[in-house]
Amino acid sequence: MTRPELRHDVRITDTTLRDGSHAMDHQFSEAQVRDTVRALDRAGVEVIEVSHGDGIGGSSFNYGFSRTDEMTLIAAAREEATTAKIAVLLVPGIGTADDLRRAHDAGAEMVRVATHCTEADVSPQHFGVAHGLGMETVGFLMMAHRTSPEDLAAQARIMVDAGCQAPYVTDSAGALLMHEARARFEAVVAEVGDEAWVGYHGHQNIAMGVANSVIAQEVGVRYIDGSLCALGAGAGNSPTEVLAAVFDRLGVDTGLDVLAMLDAAQEVVQPYLPRWPKMDRNAIVQGWAGVYSSFLLHAERAAERYKVPAHDILRRCGELGYVGGQEDMIIDVALTLAGERAS
Amino acid sequence: MTRPELRHDVRITDTTLRDGSHAMDHQFSEAQVRDTVRALDRAGVEVIEVSHGDGIGGSSFNYGFSRTDEMTLIAAAREEATTAKIAVLLVPGIGTADDLRRAHDAGAEMVRVATHCTEADVSPQHFGVAHGLGMETVGFLMMAHRTSPEDLAAQARIMVDAGCQAPYVTDSAGALLMHEARARFEAVVAEVGDEAWVGYHGHQNIAMGVANSVIAQEVGVRYIDGSLCALGAGAGNSPTEVLAAVFDRLGVDTGLDVLAMLDAAQEVVQPYLPRWPKMDRNAIVQGWAGVYSSFLLHAERAAERYKVPAHDILRRCGELGYVGGQEDMIIDVALTLAGERAS
Repeated sequence: MTRPELRHDVRITDTTLRDGSHAMDHQFSEAQVRDTVRALDRAGVEVIEVSHGDGIGGSSFNYGFSRTDEMTLIAAAREEATTAKIAVLLVPGIGTADDLRRAHDAGAEMVRVATHCTEADVSPQHFGVAHGLGMETVGFLMMAHRTSPEDLAAQARIMVDAGCQAPYVTDSAGALLMHEARARFEAVVAEVGDEAWVGYHGHQNIAMGVANSVIAQEVGVRYIDGSLCALGAGAGNSPTEVLAAVFDRLGVDTGLDVLAMLDAAQEVVQPYLPRWPKMDRNAIVQGWAGVYSSFLLHAERAAERYKVPAHDILRRCGELGYVGGQEDMIIDVALTLAGERAS
Repeated sequence: MTRPELRHDVRITDTTLRDGSHAMDHQFSEAQVRDTVRALDRAGVEVIEVSHGDGIGGSSFNYGFSRTDEMTLIAAAREEATTAKIAVLLVPGIGTADDLRRAHDAGAEMVRVATHCTEADVSPQHFGVAHGLGMETVGFLMMAHRTSPEDLAAQARIMVDAGCQAPYVTDSAGALLMHEARARFEAVVAEVGDEAWVGYHGHQNIAMGVANSVIAQEVGVRYIDGSLCALGAGAGNSPTEVLAAVFDRLGVDTGLDVLAMLDAAQEVVQPYLPRWPKMDRNAIVQGWAGVYSSFLLHAERAAERYKVPAHDILRRCGELGYVGGQEDMIIDVALTLAGERAS
């Protein structure tokens, strides 16, 4: 698979309707999705991701049930978009090839296959299916702070050789400091930059998402993610409307209309926010200790149930090195901490 | 005046109780100030600024009346601090030499004299008064995006020659992108770095405050400002608790206890927040268009009164180049915009 031509200096993907699903506790309505897609499409966003927070097939006891069937949401998004492409997230082990076929039938034109940063070898099958369906492909190397730049580049190579058009440095914990992000961008661009685009997906847990996006563009990263109002796991993603303003100031062409992006955030998304994503103690601890951002609401629920502070649960999850897919261990950690407190 | 010895790699000043006064509409109570100072002092913060948002003497019709006399707040802060120094802000033209003497008598040990970035020549008298009182001195060069690195360095030179121990690159509009901030830090350090410390005060309007703080430290800036929960004008300041976590991850010694800082933000400041400072449309426009952050609430009030959008008012203020002290012009802009809409 060759990579697509770029229409702008940077290709922005908005993930309000996927990563934001975590912050919404997966309760998006069809009307919210339609309104958000319409506003993003009008403002010039090229790719809009729509899925359960943990990817297609994520609606479950372990990850949280969706309010609306995601195939309904994907189809609604596709109807509203006039130029934007609709993408879905697929985490192998959560979503299946069959889920991907259904998402494609509903209107998804791109799949973003997400694996832990050292497990790219579980992705090739899904890139193969996507290829067969004629879908664009992206590969997420999640928790990218947990491995070296060199290894991350080797993992990106596995994805690209399997047909991935754009491997991503995915900072799921919002933990990457600028020099750490830069080293990873440079290593991945050096390894696959002649054949594929390189992407960056950031979180604001320690306020580095937008800054890392600027560095990413400087060193050759061409796909960059954001969310309106930062709606996403942890302290949220790099706000897409801030990326629009910052790249505008830098003279980097994203194709985005800054005022339309500001309006989309303020007038479409802000009214339905359950809470504005923020750098509170729990979110900062996630960036500081390198904890998967989507653990946030799970840890807060366990904290309430077992009467131990959520930030203690999150720090322990960081010490134990838990990654996406190990959400059930959060209860375990809470029980252990409760036991330690009692004794 | 020689500069003081540093006890850590970076000397953190927390301005929750001064810049945060803007976000609190100047309604701090004595109990809030005591609780905040106690928590900051315990967590190892070296300097705590306490003043009306526009500096001592700011309580007025034009800038907003304080709920509690600031001399009462300064004295309360002084009582609670065991090791931290209490600082006050003084904007010549708002505060007077007499205000400074009273603040000193109430317990202030440092003054931060703030001028527009091209008007350092109004500061020497106040540095002289501070010197006579035996106070430490800092100089704020506000709206630092509005002049070149070279000119900013020349202005810092004026301050240092007048006895300022630490001129600051003060990004009042939260507008400085990383390369713009770096150029200003480097120019000021090159000009005065042998005699004085250089400081940085940032806002999060376009998410650059923390990132610029990291760059500042890298290039020799030694005084860095933050606010708990980002409480401050615009989208708020660089959150001090995030600075603590980030510098900890970088191995830069600030003397701060990260967990105590996280607790201070979460348990002391968050409960009294009128609203969590955030990158909403108005705040982003301030960073994007380079507008003085403390115009935010003034513009929101004018917007409500004259039925024109606050972000339009702020953008017009940016186009017209208004700076701190021109708050009365905000009403003028709102009236003009309302007239344009009517016709």
